[in-house]
Amino acid sequence: MNLEKYPSRLLENAINEFARLPGIGKKSALRLVLHLLRQPKESVHSLSQSLVQLRDEIKHCKVCHNISDDEVCQICSNPSRNSSVICVVENIQDVMLIENTQQYNGLYHVLGGIISPMDGVGPSDIEIPTLVERVSQSEIIEIILALPTTMEGDTTSFYIFRKLKNMPVKVTTLSRGVAIGDDLEYTDEVTLGRSLVNRVLYENSLGKQPR
Amino acid sequence: MNLEKYPSRLLENAINEFARLPGIGKKSALRLVLHLLRQPKESVHSLSQSLVQLRDEIKHCKVCHNISDDEVCQICSNPSRNSSVICVVENIQDVMLIENTQQYNGLYHVLGGIISPMDGVGPSDIEIPTLVERVSQSEIIEIILALPTTMEGDTTSFYIFRKLKNMPVKVTTLSRGVAIGDDLEYTDEVTLGRSLVNRVLYENSLGKQPR
Repeated sequence: MNLEKYPSRLLENAINEFARLPGIGKKSALRLVLHLLRQPKESVHSLSQSLVQLRDEIKHCKVCHNISDDEVCQICSNPSRNSSVICVVENIQDVMLIENTQQYNGLYHVLGGIISPMDGVGPSDIEIPTLVERVSQSEIIEIILALPTTMEGDTTSFYIFRKLKNMPVKVTTLSRGVAIGDDLEYTDEVTLGRSLVNRVLYENSLGKQPR
Repeated sequence: MNLEKYPSRLLENAINEFARLPGIGKKSALRLVLHLLRQPKESVHSLSQSLVQLRDEIKHCKVCHNISDDEVCQICSNPSRNSSVICVVENIQDVMLIENTQQYNGLYHVLGGIISPMDGVGPSDIEIPTLVERVSQSEIIEIILALPTTMEGDTTSFYIFRKLKNMPVKVTTLSRGVAIGDDLEYTDEVTLGRSLVNRVLYENSLGKQPR
């Protein structure tokens, strides 16, 4: 469907702005915009204001680089969290995902990307120097690398491992294995092979209760 | 995935506002919001402003009730269009869909809904009285009913047909090339264009129902 003729310039502007968002085409944009036209003015103002406020006022935690309303985020400033363990993740979503497991009580370090020479992203373009600095300046016992299991993720993990090699810190990574709820039949060979090599004591596989 | 813990109140607000839009869940909202955070401030301001402007400044054409930037829309004020034919549609999208077929050169009348007793929408809740008034006050030769081929659409068509029965105007309807049970939105342009060209007298479209 070709929707290039709009009855109004205002409508067209709003559609074009929405269609710039990822995963929203012209047709969805039109549907969203017509929905907004049927809403009370206050609703539209409230949506609009929340986006501007978010973009203008949000901060990044100066310790872990997660997004935050304050200088230091809720996780870093929470005294009941274990400040001697840092989980290194690619982005903000990963922090939320790990928080939702309720299995982790340490702190985070958000890299804001991963090393990707193809995209021109090197170690100093992401928060690796600040991670090294953080490890050297505070009492960190363990660094957990929770990066994607892709070529870029593995490269980044290896780079960080090398950087921290001579520091008194244990570097661990997420276990790779068969996903819970999956049949062996649907697990790829590499993962299955790795899960055999890294097999664990049965009693340790039962998992801890969420704290 | 449970995403109820957000690291920031500003983030949470923006996500909740987005998730109120139709077809956008919490997870898509998060993706959109994180995308906006990576954009320059001007982009976000521009999106935000376009929505507020749209909602606050858009008008409805006082002749056909289509949305418009002015008192009278571009179609109604275009002297090269045939002002003796009015195509009656349910909503604004339908005008755009018919315009895109490039098979129609008359004017429109946007009802802003269809008769639906189940939803409490009666003939006077939509722009039927203004349609009757328009037909009685100007030189209209033909009314084309281009409403959905649903129960409600058929009811609305029949109601309008009855209302205009004693006026010197020919009432036609789209030919039944449009699949019964489908909204206009899901009809391809060729079929929709053909159904305009082959429109038939409303009374001939009723089939063999006893009346």
